Amino acid sequence: MKTAQILLLLAVAYTIVPISLSAQGSPEKAVRALLDAQVQSWNAGNIEEFMQGYWQSDSLRFASGGSVKYGWKTTLERYRKGYPDKAAMGKLTFSNLETTVLSADAVVVFGKWELMREQDKTEKDRPHGLFTLTFRKTPQGWKIIHDHTSSGN
Amino acid sequence: MKTAQILLLLAVAYTIVPISLSAQGSPEKAVRALLDAQVQSWNAGNIEEFMQGYWQSDSLRFASGGSVKYGWKTTLERYRKGYPDKAAMGKLTFSNLETTVLSADAVVVFGKWELMREQDKTEKDRPHGLFTLTFRKTPQGWKIIHDHTSSGN
Repeated sequence: MKTAQILLLLAVAYTIVPISLSAQGSPEKAVRALLDAQVQSWNAGNIEEFMQGYWQSDSLRFASGGSVKYGWKTTLERYRKGYPDKAAMGKLTFSNLETTVLSADAVVVFGKWELMREQDKTEKDRPHGLFTLTFRKTPQGWKIIHDHTSSGN
Repeated sequence: MKTAQILLLLAVAYTIVPISLSAQGSPEKAVRALLDAQVQSWNAGNIEEFMQGYWQSDSLRFASGGSVKYGWKTTLERYRKGYPDKAAMGKLTFSNLETTVLSADAVVVFGKWELMREQDKTEKDRPHGLFTLTFRKTPQGWKIIHDHTSSGN
């Protein structure tokens, strides 16, 4: 190969590699995209789709207040019971997200959640609180393996 | 070197290497030891010593219920205000600890906390709840960089 050809190849490689890396996405981008998709699913009233962000395993851990539950199906049932219809689900927002990339396959996201619902008359009524999520990169992509949620007063 | 000498050296190596590894400690052992030390400090009424388990940084994050605070000093003040004396501090126990090693320098520990105090007359009064802790291995050793605590009802 001639020097010019090699240089051309290198130039092309330097252009393509960053693009393909950014298409794959950083861990941070991947988990943020997952959270965006979850909010969209929730606000469409689709809990099962929302649950796609969670690890489909009996070891999935979901902690809220003083109670902890295990397993994807149990977590789905908990959500279904707590939010039986679209009115109860309301409009979910996540804010103040802080992402800590711990390794190539582990990320912790901390943030604030809030529900706006017709049934909650004042701003004070609005359910809100904080969450800590542990994400792992699984063969099925990035998934929440641990969710610890707490409610504000 | 004779074969017998080599075999002897190998035998010694197989004995020493696991011992030195266990002396250094796995991430799991290191963070469990830190938590044991914290419980001991708390139960000795020494909040400042208890706080040694936390990252001495303004970026330390401490979330409880619907509120989040940042910084080692702020967290210390929060504990001092909430637990002004040994009677208020009571006897702390951590239980049901579940440790997830995410990388060589990152661990998440989930568990249950409970305080036994003279002032809480019945078992129902006892403050208790769950915590999610993110640990990182820092130049000062393993430290809690994020604490999310929730209370049971």
